Amino acid sequence: MSKIQMFEKPLGMRDSFPEVNEQKEYIRSTARNFIRSKGYDFIKTPSVEYFETIGKASAIDESSLFKLVDNQGEMLVLRPDMTTPIARIAASKLLKEKNPLRLAYYANVFRSQRREGGRPAEFEQLGLELIGDFSAYGDSEIIHTAVELVKVLGVKSFRITIGHAGVLTAILTNNTNTKEQVDSLRQLLVEKNFVGFEQKLEEIKLSENQIENLIKWIDYSIDSKSLENFKQFLTVDQEYLLEQVDQLQRLLEIQLNDPSIVSFDFTLASHMSYYTGMIFEIHAEGSGSPIGNGGRYDELFNQFNETVGATGFGIRVDRLLEVLPKTVSVEKNTLLLFHEGFYTKANELAVEKRNNKERVTLQYIESVNDLDAYQRSFDEVLIVSEGGSLRE
Amino acid sequence: MSKIQMFEKPLGMRDSFPEVNEQKEYIRSTARNFIRSKGYDFIKTPSVEYFETIGKASAIDESSLFKLVDNQGEMLVLRPDMTTPIARIAASKLLKEKNPLRLAYYANVFRSQRREGGRPAEFEQLGLELIGDFSAYGDSEIIHTAVELVKVLGVKSFRITIGHAGVLTAILTNNTNTKEQVDSLRQLLVEKNFVGFEQKLEEIKLSENQIENLIKWIDYSIDSKSLENFKQFLTVDQEYLLEQVDQLQRLLEIQLNDPSIVSFDFTLASHMSYYTGMIFEIHAEGSGSPIGNGGRYDELFNQFNETVGATGFGIRVDRLLEVLPKTVSVEKNTLLLFHEGFYTKANELAVEKRNNKERVTLQYIESVNDLDAYQRSFDEVLIVSEGGSLRE
Repeated sequence: MSKIQMFEKPLGMRDSFPEVNEQKEYIRSTARNFIRSKGYDFIKTPSVEYFETIGKASAIDESSLFKLVDNQGEMLVLRPDMTTPIARIAASKLLKEKNPLRLAYYANVFRSQRREGGRPAEFEQLGLELIGDFSAYGDSEIIHTAVELVKVLGVKSFRITIGHAGVLTAILTNNTNTKEQVDSLRQLLVEKNFVGFEQKLEEIKLSENQIENLIKWIDYSIDSKSLENFKQFLTVDQEYLLEQVDQLQRLLEIQLNDPSIVSFDFTLASHMSYYTGMIFEIHAEGSGSPIGNGGRYDELFNQFNETVGATGFGIRVDRLLEVLPKTVSVEKNTLLLFHEGFYTKANELAVEKRNNKERVTLQYIESVNDLDAYQRSFDEVLIVSEGGSLRE
Repeated sequence: MSKIQMFEKPLGMRDSFPEVNEQKEYIRSTARNFIRSKGYDFIKTPSVEYFETIGKASAIDESSLFKLVDNQGEMLVLRPDMTTPIARIAASKLLKEKNPLRLAYYANVFRSQRREGGRPAEFEQLGLELIGDFSAYGDSEIIHTAVELVKVLGVKSFRITIGHAGVLTAILTNNTNTKEQVDSLRQLLVEKNFVGFEQKLEEIKLSENQIENLIKWIDYSIDSKSLENFKQFLTVDQEYLLEQVDQLQRLLEIQLNDPSIVSFDFTLASHMSYYTGMIFEIHAEGSGSPIGNGGRYDELFNQFNETVGATGFGIRVDRLLEVLPKTVSVEKNTLLLFHEGFYTKANELAVEKRNNKERVTLQYIESVNDLDAYQRSFDEVLIVSEGGSLRE
C-alpha cells in the first residue's frame, strides 16, 4: 500500500473531527427535542435498500446512486434520500396504526460524485414528514415548523421561498408542445438559469404567443405579482392550484410571527421529481446553496399502493454548519498524570472532578513520550506523585 | 413491482421504529456523556471506504464485506468495523496532535449475510480506542471503562472474561507443527467448540506429548489455575506475556469495586485477527452472545506505518437492547384537534403545553379519517372549536 493511498478516502467521503462532531451533536439533540415536542416520532431505516424498491422510487438521478450487488445477486442501493424509505415504512406498517402520521429522522444519505468538486458523497440530513393530510394546514405546519426549527438551531438571518410544483408544471405544459420541452425548461429553472431559459425558448422553436406568455410569467414571478395575475397562464380547471397557494399564504400570514421572511415565487423548481404541490427552499446568510428544502409529494405514495397526502422537509447539516457560529465547549478539560503506585489517589481526584462536570483524562505518566506537546490540549494539568498533587 | 417486493428490505437490514429508536437514543446520549467525561473525543468516519485501505486491514472476513465499485472504477467497502477507520484517522492526522489519543464512536457497521439467520447486516456499535499507550494501565483503563459504562447503561447482571491473544498463539504454536493447525484450532476456540477441539487434535495427528499438553492446558484454563501453572506451556522468552496478564490482573484488583465480575480464561479467542495482547468479552444475562468485546491490537498500526500501542472495545447496541428493560416514556403525549378558524386558539394552547414539557400534536380535525383509531395513540385529546376547549 503506498503512503498516499493508505490514508485516502473515496471521492466525496469525509471524516468528522471532534470539534465539528460536537457541533453536529448539538444540532442533533436540539432539533430532536424541538421536533419531538411537535408530536413527530423519530425512526431509523437501513442504509442499504433494494434498488427496485427505493432506488427507482426516489427522485434522485440514477447516475448519483451508489449501487451494489448482494450475495443473492440482487441490486442494492445506499439510500439517496430519506423520504422514500419513510414512505415505504409508512405504507407497509405505520399508517395502519396512526393516520395522519408524523415521522422524523436524522440520517446520512448518499450521492455518488463524478469528480472532485467539493460536494459530499455522504451527508447528514435532518427532516420530518407529515403523511395523511391533504390540507393546507399540513403544508403550513411543515413550513411553520421549518421556520421555527431553523430559529431554534440558532440561524440568525434566513429567508423561505415558496413555489408550487403543480402550478409550474401546468404553466410550462400550457405553453409548450412536448414533455421534453417541459423537462428541459424545468431543468434550467432548477439551475436558476434565466438567461438559458430565454435562449431555450427560441431554440426549441415555440410560437410567438408561447414565448411571450412564458417571459411575461417569469417577469410576473420576479415582481411577485398577486395571485390573480397568474390566472391568465392557467386553464379554468387548473385554477384550484392557485387556491391552494392562496390558502397556504393566508395561513402563514396568521401563523408566522414575521411573515415577511416568506416570499412566493412560481419559478421555483426542484430536482426532486416527486413533488406535486407546494415546494420551498430555505436560504441562510453564509451559504450559497439552500440549507433546506421541502414540499408536498402526494404521488410518491402511489408507488406504494396508497392514496395519501404527504408533505415534509429536510435540512442539510453540512450547510447548517457553514452558517452557524462555531460553538465553544465550556467544559473544563483536565489531565491527571500519575506515577506508578499513585493510581488510586489519582482516580479519587478524577472521580471528584468528574462529579464537578469536568472532563478528566487519567494518564500513566510513563506512557507519554512528549509531555510538553501532550499538555497543550488540556485546560489544566495535574501530576499525582509522591509529593502529592502538584499544579503544573 | 409486486406487493411483497415493494416493502422488502435486503437480507439482514432492519427498520428501527419509534419506541426502539428512543431507547437507542437513551443509550447513545448516556454513553456519550459518560465516555466524554473520561476524556474521550467522539469522531465520525465515512460509511464507505477504499477496499485497499480499510477492507483489507480490517479483521473481518472478506466474504462478509459489502463491496461496491465507484465512478472511478475503484473498489469500495461499507465499513465492517470502526477500529480500522479510527486507526487510519489517528495515523494520518490525530496522533500528531495528541499522543496518547482517546477516541470514541457511536456508528453503524456492515456485515453481509449469506442466508436468513436473524443476524443483522447493519448494526450500531458504541466504543472507544486508547491509542499510544503500551502499558497495562492502558489495558486496565479499557476494561475498567467498559465495566463502568455497562453499569451506567443499566445492565444489571454481567461478567467479563479476559484472555490474551499472544499467550493463546504462543501455546498453540508451541504444541503444533504448522500455521494451518494453529488457525484451525483457534477457530474451534472462537466457536467455543471444545469437543471439536479435542477431536481435531487427533485428526491432525499431533504427537502424544502435544495432545497431552493442549488438553492439560484446556483443563487448567477451565479450572482457572493460577498464572504460575501456565509457564510450563511457554518458552522462557514468552514468559513476559504472563507478566502482562499478571500486571493487568493486579491493576483490576485495585480498580474494580467488585473484581469478582472479572475472570481470566486463556482459551478465549476472537474472530478479530488483529488482536495481539489482552482480549475480553462482556456477557450479560439475557443475551446468548457477548454484548461487547475488546482487546489490544498494537500491530494494526504497522499497516499504517506507525509503531504505537492501541487498545479498545466496542459494545453492540442491538444486543444491549436485548438485555435492558424497556424504557417507558414519561412525557405526556397530547393531541389538539382544531376546527377551521380555530388554529390560533389551538396553537396558543399547544405552545403553553409544550412549555410544560408535553409533546403536542396540532391537527386539523377535517384531515382525520378515523378519529376513534387516531385518538388511541395519545394520552390526552382536546378539541378546540366554537364551544371552546373540550376534553374528550
